[in-house]
Amino acid sequence: MDNNVIECAVVMAGGSGTRFWPMSRVCKPKQFLPVTGGESLLVQTCNRLNPLLGDDRMVAILGEGHLPEAKACLADRPIRLIGEPVGRNTAPCIALGALYARSRGVQGAIAFLPADHHTGDQKAFLDALCTAAHKSLSGGIVTLGIVPDRPDTGYGYIRRESSAASDPVDGVFRVAEFVEKPDLDHARRYVASGEYYWNAGVFVATAESILREVERHLPALHRNLSRLEGAFGGEDFARRLEEVYESIEGISFDYGVMEKPGVEGYVVPCRCDWSDVGSWASLYALRSASQDADGNHIDADAVLIDCRGSFVQAAGKKIVACLGLEDILVVDTPDALLVARLDRSQDIRRIVDAIKSKGKDAFL
Amino acid sequence: MDNNVIECAVVMAGGSGTRFWPMSRVCKPKQFLPVTGGESLLVQTCNRLNPLLGDDRMVAILGEGHLPEAKACLADRPIRLIGEPVGRNTAPCIALGALYARSRGVQGAIAFLPADHHTGDQKAFLDALCTAAHKSLSGGIVTLGIVPDRPDTGYGYIRRESSAASDPVDGVFRVAEFVEKPDLDHARRYVASGEYYWNAGVFVATAESILREVERHLPALHRNLSRLEGAFGGEDFARRLEEVYESIEGISFDYGVMEKPGVEGYVVPCRCDWSDVGSWASLYALRSASQDADGNHIDADAVLIDCRGSFVQAAGKKIVACLGLEDILVVDTPDALLVARLDRSQDIRRIVDAIKSKGKDAFL
Repeated sequence: MDNNVIECAVVMAGGSGTRFWPMSRVCKPKQFLPVTGGESLLVQTCNRLNPLLGDDRMVAILGEGHLPEAKACLADRPIRLIGEPVGRNTAPCIALGALYARSRGVQGAIAFLPADHHTGDQKAFLDALCTAAHKSLSGGIVTLGIVPDRPDTGYGYIRRESSAASDPVDGVFRVAEFVEKPDLDHARRYVASGEYYWNAGVFVATAESILREVERHLPALHRNLSRLEGAFGGEDFARRLEEVYESIEGISFDYGVMEKPGVEGYVVPCRCDWSDVGSWASLYALRSASQDADGNHIDADAVLIDCRGSFVQAAGKKIVACLGLEDILVVDTPDALLVARLDRSQDIRRIVDAIKSKGKDAFL
Repeated sequence: MDNNVIECAVVMAGGSGTRFWPMSRVCKPKQFLPVTGGESLLVQTCNRLNPLLGDDRMVAILGEGHLPEAKACLADRPIRLIGEPVGRNTAPCIALGALYARSRGVQGAIAFLPADHHTGDQKAFLDALCTAAHKSLSGGIVTLGIVPDRPDTGYGYIRRESSAASDPVDGVFRVAEFVEKPDLDHARRYVASGEYYWNAGVFVATAESILREVERHLPALHRNLSRLEGAFGGEDFARRLEEVYESIEGISFDYGVMEKPGVEGYVVPCRCDWSDVGSWASLYALRSASQDADGNHIDADAVLIDCRGSFVQAAGKKIVACLGLEDILVVDTPDALLVARLDRSQDIRRIVDAIKSKGKDAFL
């Protein structure tokens, strides 16, 4: 493994994390929680990169309201933190990270990674990242493409150009298109074709490549962010960032840049036991190793009778008793309790919205 | 309504109440809780009788460990309380009540009633009780028979003799037999026949009738209890009762007396919107008036999305969120949480047993 090929890592930790309510809250989204056990997802993400680069070459970009949580997670590690005054999706975040890296003199490959994903096979992940980094040095923006093992409808897909046309070198393909979350029928065809990968939201590129494409496809964003030139590390950086963020629009890097015609995009296929940990259901799937014989995942002082495929989590000294449940999610916290069908866990946002509209923000 | 026909009421409040765990606990069974809303079931039972007789003519028999709960419920009401040192089922309780009443000079009708049932139509119930009381004065033991409106398999049934043979006078039938809880097929036939009633566990008889039948069919019980003659109200009553209860066996009045050959049993049919409130499912059925349009009963600060036929109860300031549930019971208390299929609520005893066998008696 080449531990010099990536010069800087931008860890994107701006998620608001309503999908793990009531475990995650507005003030503590999932990246700051040990959702998968052990360390928080943010810490896991940074640790995962350490074989390739040290903490002093990482920057985490997150909501400024979450700076205390991030500091608590990362303790005294010399990871630079940049607080966004408001979330504007990934395009501003990636462009900001590129600008920051350039201001620090970074000319080589930068990896941009979400802070809240799970990776089971670290070596496979880092190998793919190195391949992407090498490729990025000759131009273009390289993504990781997770080789799908099932027709998941919860992920976006990346289609590569077919090998004949693409002439892949060392496991790198040209991107043909980015595809939004498909229905099951399309997902099945994607997986069967062998030409589609899950979009993990990981990008590797030089600052120059990123900023050139942003300038081309999101000129207003580029213009606004350029006002920060020379401001990084300055005393009034936060104020100036706030002014900039007030004027820019939220847009994803996929939609705003990668899907535009003429963008030189590449994909490096990767089998690394990856999950975006996007819902209670995906966390349940991740925890399959710790399920009981009836497929129940229990993280509580609990008594289960005649239950199957259920997920029970409770904090503290409480006892949880379950009887006759199938595929039910139970999450108990001191001030909020969630009981849901596990296969409806992608709709937990509706719960959060309903609580908000009742004016009960204290529970969010 | 004849408000002199019943001379004494014996309210049987000895239930241990595991069926409403975790709302009810060993130290606070359901009769001491406002299970149906408003007052506790014990207080409702006493209040229901007040049009016929005053508090000073009532005695409540209960586990001596529950005397503080009963006193708290009944405040300063002059209802006599007798604490049983240990539960021995209904035959000893009824015989003890009859002995007590006789010691107080009661020669007329005594009503024996469970403390933990619900009655929607008080007038119909009291009318039936008066009819039973009148009948009891000419001998025999008279039960109330609840006219069934569905083939419930959770209740025991009473079959009356067919009218031709029975020659009913004023709505009183001779009892042909007591039947244990049937399967659905039998229950359907019982209801269709018009000759079966639900056994509500209510008996009306003179002390003499009760004690004569107990002497005949449960002579050991009669002999032991007779040692209490003259002890009621005495200083060493509790000690003497404890000695007696150590020597007697637990047996129900139905099984030990009413089902024996030669017992002169009568039944008064009654339509009074009755329930034994025997499980969360029966409580859910009782609360049909307060259900939302999707048949959910909500007694909590709750947000329900796409839920049907569910029962949600929570104490305190907690928020409960439910998503996609059907026929699910959620009961949250500060130290214990139950999530169960509502139609499995008769099996909650298994939960309680499992908690006990884990040695976690503090939660019982």
